[in-house]
Amino acid sequence: MQSLIDIRARISAGTLTPAGALDLCREAIAAREPALKAFVAIDAAPAIPESGPLAGIAVGVKDIIDTADLPTQMGSAIYEGWRPRADAAVVARLRALGAVVLAKTTTTAFASLDPTQTRNPHDPGHTPGGSSAGSAAAVGAGLMPLALGTQTGGSVIRPASFCGCAAIKPSFRLIPTTGVKTYSWALDTVGLFAAGVGDLAYALAALTGRAGITAPATASNPRIAVVRQDFAQAPGPESVEALERARAAAEAAGATVFDLTLPPELASAWERHATIQDFEARQALAWEYDRHRDRLAPLVRGHLDAGAAITPAAYDDARRHAHRARRLLKDLFAEFDAILTYSAPGPAPETLASTGDARFNRLWTLMGVPCVNVPVPGFRLPVGVQVIGRFGDDGRALAVAALVEGALRG
Amino acid sequence: MQSLIDIRARISAGTLTPAGALDLCREAIAAREPALKAFVAIDAAPAIPESGPLAGIAVGVKDIIDTADLPTQMGSAIYEGWRPRADAAVVARLRALGAVVLAKTTTTAFASLDPTQTRNPHDPGHTPGGSSAGSAAAVGAGLMPLALGTQTGGSVIRPASFCGCAAIKPSFRLIPTTGVKTYSWALDTVGLFAAGVGDLAYALAALTGRAGITAPATASNPRIAVVRQDFAQAPGPESVEALERARAAAEAAGATVFDLTLPPELASAWERHATIQDFEARQALAWEYDRHRDRLAPLVRGHLDAGAAITPAAYDDARRHAHRARRLLKDLFAEFDAILTYSAPGPAPETLASTGDARFNRLWTLMGVPCVNVPVPGFRLPVGVQVIGRFGDDGRALAVAALVEGALRG
Repeated sequence: MQSLIDIRARISAGTLTPAGALDLCREAIAAREPALKAFVAIDAAPAIPESGPLAGIAVGVKDIIDTADLPTQMGSAIYEGWRPRADAAVVARLRALGAVVLAKTTTTAFASLDPTQTRNPHDPGHTPGGSSAGSAAAVGAGLMPLALGTQTGGSVIRPASFCGCAAIKPSFRLIPTTGVKTYSWALDTVGLFAAGVGDLAYALAALTGRAGITAPATASNPRIAVVRQDFAQAPGPESVEALERARAAAEAAGATVFDLTLPPELASAWERHATIQDFEARQALAWEYDRHRDRLAPLVRGHLDAGAAITPAAYDDARRHAHRARRLLKDLFAEFDAILTYSAPGPAPETLASTGDARFNRLWTLMGVPCVNVPVPGFRLPVGVQVIGRFGDDGRALAVAALVEGALRG
Repeated sequence: MQSLIDIRARISAGTLTPAGALDLCREAIAAREPALKAFVAIDAAPAIPESGPLAGIAVGVKDIIDTADLPTQMGSAIYEGWRPRADAAVVARLRALGAVVLAKTTTTAFASLDPTQTRNPHDPGHTPGGSSAGSAAAVGAGLMPLALGTQTGGSVIRPASFCGCAAIKPSFRLIPTTGVKTYSWALDTVGLFAAGVGDLAYALAALTGRAGITAPATASNPRIAVVRQDFAQAPGPESVEALERARAAAEAAGATVFDLTLPPELASAWERHATIQDFEARQALAWEYDRHRDRLAPLVRGHLDAGAAITPAAYDDARRHAHRARRLLKDLFAEFDAILTYSAPGPAPETLASTGDARFNRLWTLMGVPCVNVPVPGFRLPVGVQVIGRFGDDGRALAVAALVEGALRG
């Protein structure tokens, strides 16, 4: 993988130019993209800023995120050839920082569940995950140092786990969703993929103008609560082993680690994630559903059909459960710095017909808390663990994730 | 003005067809629109559904709200001739209910403060208010029975007060903002303009699929807290008199009315409205600001300049104040059914160079609570009062507003 921090250090040292950094991406793309199929559009001759905190950083942008200079096709025939007028807020910000939007990356239709053409960079017979399939695969395959995705259920953390890269789903609305196609306005969250946790912290600090994200006031011996999410079906053996290894490594690195069973209110919220998601999706995609239902991919169409049957009363009830769970989780965080849990039920399934299961991600999206995927080395196919921080404290989540990452690398 | 409920009753009774209802609008438009200038686009030959709860209802849609069949130009030269791919969620919903999107209405550039060409229907030398200028003027002038606006500071309630129509800014996100140009994601709220409170309730119940909005479980003798918002500069004599009249009328109609001074935490939140608004606007409109700053209208450009100077720490502080005030206001609502306060500092100012002052609206937008403008009869130019309900209880806010409206009509 290409490390954003390494590239920036080489540019700062004068041993690499921004144009040279882009050439490295183009070489990697030429070698791997024909089989990987992570992109739906590439900018053949982008402007390459000479300065800025992200100068020389090529970015892949999930194709539900508006770009004025490249098509934005939502993974759907309904948007074939569509060109928005403006860049999404996060894309404009990337450009202002000197980054180069080099490619649009594949997305499942409207960031739902219908698989894309993209292959897992570690084994082409396995899914890269979804919905941010192309972004995770592009970073995991080393095509570029940074990519944008979005998560409504588990669409950042799960594909990062499957593709073996680091990723963060930040606190809700820390990165604006303006110009990002809406699926569920209460859940949709823009996230980042990069080679390592330090790369994520550098990019998120720059994007948000929050220097503190790279220098959080964290104790060097964090308290970590290990959560197994017993309300969800148990994971496979690789994920169990990955969590054990991460736990042991963190403890060896000085963390205080203990087990935590979440109170039942959090399971109740988790059960209601789909109610909120599908009720909102049916409204957010009303034009597509009413005018082009027959052109919708089957899985997203099924979710919208389900959404049409959800009553406002059921939706309100789900929101109340989520609100209660958020307040409870906030109180729980008084006792620890981070939660450590599964990123996914296992490595990427051996199929291209499914993007995998988001059951270990949904609660945290609904809670709006920052989640970081940390790859755990030593498996044939990538397996990650998830480090979760309190709402609004993305810096601490990243600091704990960096400790886990470092401890696992030994 | 055209009453939505009347039109629907006549259509149900068979004395008016949907096409006939549209003809009434066209006649009114032919008579008044040349001087009023409320529209930026009209659909010359729209499809007119024969059935649905809003069949026969022509709607004006503020021109920051996406329409697939008509241009959406944001009140800005930057979007001249722009055609979105999809309808906004609320527009698709209107169409599904049988309504006809007849016209796009003027908006200040990006729903900020630069005046539009629209005149006040009650006196062409006075502003119609903003930013939803065209929607308020079109309904106030009787061109159509329903229009959509948005409020980030006071852009629904203020122009409704100036143009003499009823309006609701519903609870935050009760109507989705998907497909609505973002200014501030924490504040932007889609609202409705109509002739009377009953018309608003009918339309909001249909739009949201919440029948309870038209039949709230409200005591017939509501408790009303009169709030003068002393933290803001005092209003002019007409607004003081309008509030007194509304208060006396409500009392005579059986309401229990008392004065309430808001705790200082609400004033602290009010003071920080612009911090949240401008910080977010600078990000939401990053593409426009970075690429087309010289083509931005001067007042919106000034706000974006101001937004660029706001630190994340100041923004976070403002959000914490708002959060605290919201929880406090929720507790206060245990003691009453609604707040009664000013809609605006006075009638529409005699100028076309300003859209008026939103100082009596900002707190309530920030709190996310439903606000209803009720016109108070008997002034040369329209003056309204504002009935405010608790978050999520738009039905009760409308029921109290209906009581005030009925009491004022005697």
